[in-house]
Amino acid sequence: MDSSNQSSCAPVVHDARLRVRYAETDQMKVVYHSNYIVWMEVGRVELLRSLGYSYEDMEKDGYGLPVVEVHCRYRQPALYDDVVLIRTSIAQLRSKLIRFSYQILRESSGELLAEGESTHMVKGPDGKVTALPDKYMEPLRKAKGC
Amino acid sequence: MDSSNQSSCAPVVHDARLRVRYAETDQMKVVYHSNYIVWMEVGRVELLRSLGYSYEDMEKDGYGLPVVEVHCRYRQPALYDDVVLIRTSIAQLRSKLIRFSYQILRESSGELLAEGESTHMVKGPDGKVTALPDKYMEPLRKAKGC
Amino acid sequence: MDSSNQSSCAPVVHDARLRVRYAETDQMKVVYHSNYIVWMEVGRVELLRSLGYSYEDMEKDGYGLPVVEVHCRYRQPALYDDVVLIRTSIAQLRSKLIRFSYQILRESSGELLAEGESTHMVKGPDGKVTALPDKYMEPLRKAKGC
Amino acid sequence: MDSSNQSSCAPVVHDARLRVRYAETDQMKVVYHSNYIVWMEVGRVELLRSLGYSYEDMEKDGYGLPVVEVHCRYRQPALYDDVVLIRTSIAQLRSKLIRFSYQILRESSGELLAEGESTHMVKGPDGKVTALPDKYMEPLRKAKGC
Repeated sequence: MDSSNQSSCAPVVHDARLRVRYAETDQMKVVYHSNYIVWMEVGRVELLRSLGYSYEDMEKDGYGLPVVEVHCRYRQPALYDDVVLIRTSIAQLRSKLIRFSYQILRESSGELLAEGESTHMVKGPDGKVTALPDKYMEPLRKAKGC
Repeated sequence: MDSSNQSSCAPVVHDARLRVRYAETDQMKVVYHSNYIVWMEVGRVELLRSLGYSYEDMEKDGYGLPVVEVHCRYRQPALYDDVVLIRTSIAQLRSKLIRFSYQILRESSGELLAEGESTHMVKGPDGKVTALPDKYMEPLRKAKGC
Repeated sequence: MDSSNQSSCAPVVHDARLRVRYAETDQMKVVYHSNYIVWMEVGRVELLRSLGYSYEDMEKDGYGLPVVEVHCRYRQPALYDDVVLIRTSIAQLRSKLIRFSYQILRESSGELLAEGESTHMVKGPDGKVTALPDKYMEPLRKAKGC
Repeated sequence: MDSSNQSSCAPVVHDARLRVRYAETDQMKVVYHSNYIVWMEVGRVELLRSLGYSYEDMEKDGYGLPVVEVHCRYRQPALYDDVVLIRTSIAQLRSKLIRFSYQILRESSGELLAEGESTHMVKGPDGKVTALPDKYMEPLRKAKGC
């Protein structure tokens, strides 16, 4: 479902892959725009998995990454049954804040369909903003590149 | 948003009202069928509210009504921007199980768009199937009619 | 469902109102963030209706307002069964482009839950970017204020 | 993403595979029940693809399979990040009506999470109920088994 490229010091750019569902289209015969925001979730979750852990692990450990900002620019419509790539990388990384960057592409043509960012704060077991533990932070730091 | 008719011993039939969102349409230019299942949720939640309590109260009290079965028969398509009525009543009531019955209508024409049922078990604070406390059950019993 | 204030030259700010559905929550026990993007659609559609026409009329006439950009900043989580206001106004207006601005508020407390913008191009009957006809543009111009 | 078993005269049972998205959970910390109905769509679309054509081809050809009835019985909750199998087969086949049958399973444990059916009429290029052309019907007939 996923592929990733990762060299010593180069940033990780991860491609998650999904197929557009009929449920995701609207009567303009394109994908309804809020679904891209859901796809970004798929992109960052699969990026984390490619780094060696799952968002679910992190949540069971008491940490979460609630979204504080989301931004999406739509270029070309995604269509029903398209296979779509969500190309995700880490745009910004601070101890208590992570910003992911996304490009959404039509696999068959390579066309850029949309691009965007999502910003997340780190929430700890007590529900407050906190620093992400090293075991989660270190792989992110490497993935961001140097 | 809602209206209800309620006489001494007649069953309560409650109409919740909502407007179809663009997000709910699909490229067949009708409402995608899974959204009717969400509308049933709106219907039963508003029926409970008309009986004097909210599902949220019940949940804060430790009780829940997870869905164990859902059934929907589609007659006519709901269309974008339609105002839709979700006519809800109680089809079956046992201490640990509730079945709601729904008719979904286009308000402007009165046409029947879909009809269905959802069956729920009662889950208690310990996560197990249990009997619904009297304060929640009694209004349901009256609403079912005699 | 809606209310609006509108004076001679003051910009129209329109409040649409909706109740959070269980379907819109996620396991963080708050509304999943992509739903705010759907609520923005509700906000702008009801703003148009308050100006005297519906988006559906516009579409039947061959015009559409596809989203080219969306942006949302999340302040406080919306919760299940909350009544939410989507306060919508027109931030920018050009013949072929409209930007709406939104504040999403919890009705009970008046708290700001999120704010954002959506930008739309005007698409004509031939599927190309075009100027919005006067009958749709004029009410928007007045609503933007002077 | 998919696998299928197909022998001479045995019915085709096709497994589509997907991972539960955070967006699909609700505050009961399980998958919200209407999402299973969307997953059924994934199941039948991938079953068709395994037979050599796509639902999209069929639609471009002027034919559609609107849902006339859906039924789902929930056994165990699907959870966030679960990999889920949608095991789909053809339960009934008439020239103008198709019924698919589904089992939804947790891949890791093999547990049955839900089972259900969806019934579809065949709609032709003129929007009326019609018989499905042979090129689409013949593979279905074989897939149903003898």
